[in-house]
Amino acid sequence: MTMVQGVWNDIAAIRARAPLVHNITNYVVMNLTANALLALGASPVMAHAAEEVEDMVGIADALVLNIGTLSRPWIEAMEKAAGAAGRKGIPVVVDPVGAGATPFRTATALRLIAAARPAVLRGNASEIRALALSKAETKGVDSRHGAEEAVEAARTIARRTGGAVSVSGPVDIVVDGSGIVRAANGHPLMPRVTGLGCVASALTGAFAAVNPSPLRAAAHAMAVMGIAGELAGAEAAGPASFQVRFLDALYAITEEDITRLLKIETA
Amino acid sequence: MTMVQGVWNDIAAIRARAPLVHNITNYVVMNLTANALLALGASPVMAHAAEEVEDMVGIADALVLNIGTLSRPWIEAMEKAAGAAGRKGIPVVVDPVGAGATPFRTATALRLIAAARPAVLRGNASEIRALALSKAETKGVDSRHGAEEAVEAARTIARRTGGAVSVSGPVDIVVDGSGIVRAANGHPLMPRVTGLGCVASALTGAFAAVNPSPLRAAAHAMAVMGIAGELAGAEAAGPASFQVRFLDALYAITEEDITRLLKIETA
Amino acid sequence: MTMVQGVWNDIAAIRARAPLVHNITNYVVMNLTANALLALGASPVMAHAAEEVEDMVGIADALVLNIGTLSRPWIEAMEKAAGAAGRKGIPVVVDPVGAGATPFRTATALRLIAAARPAVLRGNASEIRALALSKAETKGVDSRHGAEEAVEAARTIARRTGGAVSVSGPVDIVVDGSGIVRAANGHPLMPRVTGLGCVASALTGAFAAVNPSPLRAAAHAMAVMGIAGELAGAEAAGPASFQVRFLDALYAITEEDITRLLKIETA
Repeated sequence: MTMVQGVWNDIAAIRARAPLVHNITNYVVMNLTANALLALGASPVMAHAAEEVEDMVGIADALVLNIGTLSRPWIEAMEKAAGAAGRKGIPVVVDPVGAGATPFRTATALRLIAAARPAVLRGNASEIRALALSKAETKGVDSRHGAEEAVEAARTIARRTGGAVSVSGPVDIVVDGSGIVRAANGHPLMPRVTGLGCVASALTGAFAAVNPSPLRAAAHAMAVMGIAGELAGAEAAGPASFQVRFLDALYAITEEDITRLLKIETA
Repeated sequence: MTMVQGVWNDIAAIRARAPLVHNITNYVVMNLTANALLALGASPVMAHAAEEVEDMVGIADALVLNIGTLSRPWIEAMEKAAGAAGRKGIPVVVDPVGAGATPFRTATALRLIAAARPAVLRGNASEIRALALSKAETKGVDSRHGAEEAVEAARTIARRTGGAVSVSGPVDIVVDGSGIVRAANGHPLMPRVTGLGCVASALTGAFAAVNPSPLRAAAHAMAVMGIAGELAGAEAAGPASFQVRFLDALYAITEEDITRLLKIETA
Repeated sequence: MTMVQGVWNDIAAIRARAPLVHNITNYVVMNLTANALLALGASPVMAHAAEEVEDMVGIADALVLNIGTLSRPWIEAMEKAAGAAGRKGIPVVVDPVGAGATPFRTATALRLIAAARPAVLRGNASEIRALALSKAETKGVDSRHGAEEAVEAARTIARRTGGAVSVSGPVDIVVDGSGIVRAANGHPLMPRVTGLGCVASALTGAFAAVNPSPLRAAAHAMAVMGIAGELAGAEAAGPASFQVRFLDALYAITEEDITRLLKIETA
């Protein structure tokens, strides 16, 4: 199977099966990530009450945990949901937003990773480095590093979790215990839209629901993000019209778009 | 008064009086529902602190309660607000998002309905069936049933509340103790935008603030949703440009649009 | 330095330095304000956990506190963050959303103002009057007064805080202990988009991070809001397409736009 076929098969599976992706995520991106999942063809659900997260995991096909606007009760819900996902055997994606920016974030992300052993940990280079090296160097939630500078950090964490680690940047990098994939699609306006990293994590959940390889699921998600970004960027006047076109592109993306644009490389 | 006149009179009243609609709703849709209410001509306010919900109801013309991202403190605030709305005599709309998906949601929705005796309960067919039959069959927050399959369930609940029950679907159905209205406007992209069901509930609050008949207020809201959807869908490239056009259409909708497009039927 | 140069210098400084603006704000506008800050060139971060707000202030260049969807734990986080900002010496902007609408809001806003002594308090005329006169006359979160009617109230508060007070309206007014600035840019669709007042407060934070004069920072922010509104309004079909164009305009705004459109007046 070619790379193009692999990516397209996953999109077709998501559109056919509409996997239910349970998100416990931050307030800033809830609407955007729900819309991105719907546009791609998945079914989003957002629920965080301790009283119901295990039941919601019980009907879900993947779980996405994102600490962007974390607080004590939400962390407890994430841990409960992670436990239920582990028992059920559905993939968990963790997005350690802002790890490194404050000790509370770094500690919370490390605890969640230990508890959830995520199929995919997806962050930017600063976050992944902070989690591997226990060094706080994030500026807010932006990254100052290219993904390439976080490859060793990503491998260190992948050995701990047994899953994949996905590092976003101008070239995205996904590693697991044995492999590495580089995805080079994307558009310069993407970092100017809040929450596209969180969208990448949510879509990674949808791909992980239909593809049993965390490495491939994560890489395919990043490739589709980047291709939708290129389709969107062609005519955007700025970040807001870009966002509208990006969601429309997730909805309309075709096998021909993948064939024409995909820039992915396995080593 | 013709149906067209009834719908248009309500829109004109909302635009003239800008009723204050107090929403205690979910995180995913707060921004979208506030924008939809503003676009239509109503005044939205979002407030959920136990310390102020009764005071806020005191200046409001309608109350909308939506359990999409429920948690214990929010439910308590909803119950307090419902009590104040009952004492003041303003209409309450309840949206039981995801009822049937988890026992916590179903139980919460049933308690809220008993406490608020809502003028309008507005949900999809799966939610309404789960609440009438105590059967959990929702998949996430999507509906697997057409509204027609929930008519008996809706009537059962309407007898309990003394109000109307509004069931959304390709054809929306609103029932009360004596009547039934079918509203057939709409567009296939509507289920691909997160929170349009919640928007329907919020707009139902605005219509209920100006129309004393819960049945008519609910039916007019669904008709306007559907017509705005048709106006938006004509040129949309996908769900995000559809959403932009949908809100613009709520703002710009004219009596001529209603006359030309309205598909509503009373029995 | 001319007014045009003053405004443009601030924009250029924000784009060059990407100041980190820490927002503790309401659920309705989190996504929009983050996108507005990113579009302008600033770095937004949203964080409200008591466990980390002081650390987050430690890496921030400005702090914006907004009580739109207030609750007890959020107020405590705001007070903690305000204390840390005072000790660090970064500017604080307070947006007293809905002050006057409920006693809880008015009391909270007054306590926050006393605790934070904000460089800029930014609200609409009803809110500012309620805070100065302890009279509750807000209808929801809309203003029934022009900014001109709140000049004395704004001066009263400015004497208390030692900072500037920014009152939005068709003509925005900013006062401090000695001066007054009127900014007359804007577009009639702006009040039809939820949260543009909150965006004004967030952008005021970005301007205050690069301009040591609270009066000028606040006035420049309002001028840029208004000019972006005029650029956006030229082709908008309604409030949603207006919002998309508004964010694109913040991203694309040029010195030539400022020169051509700026309507500002100092007395």
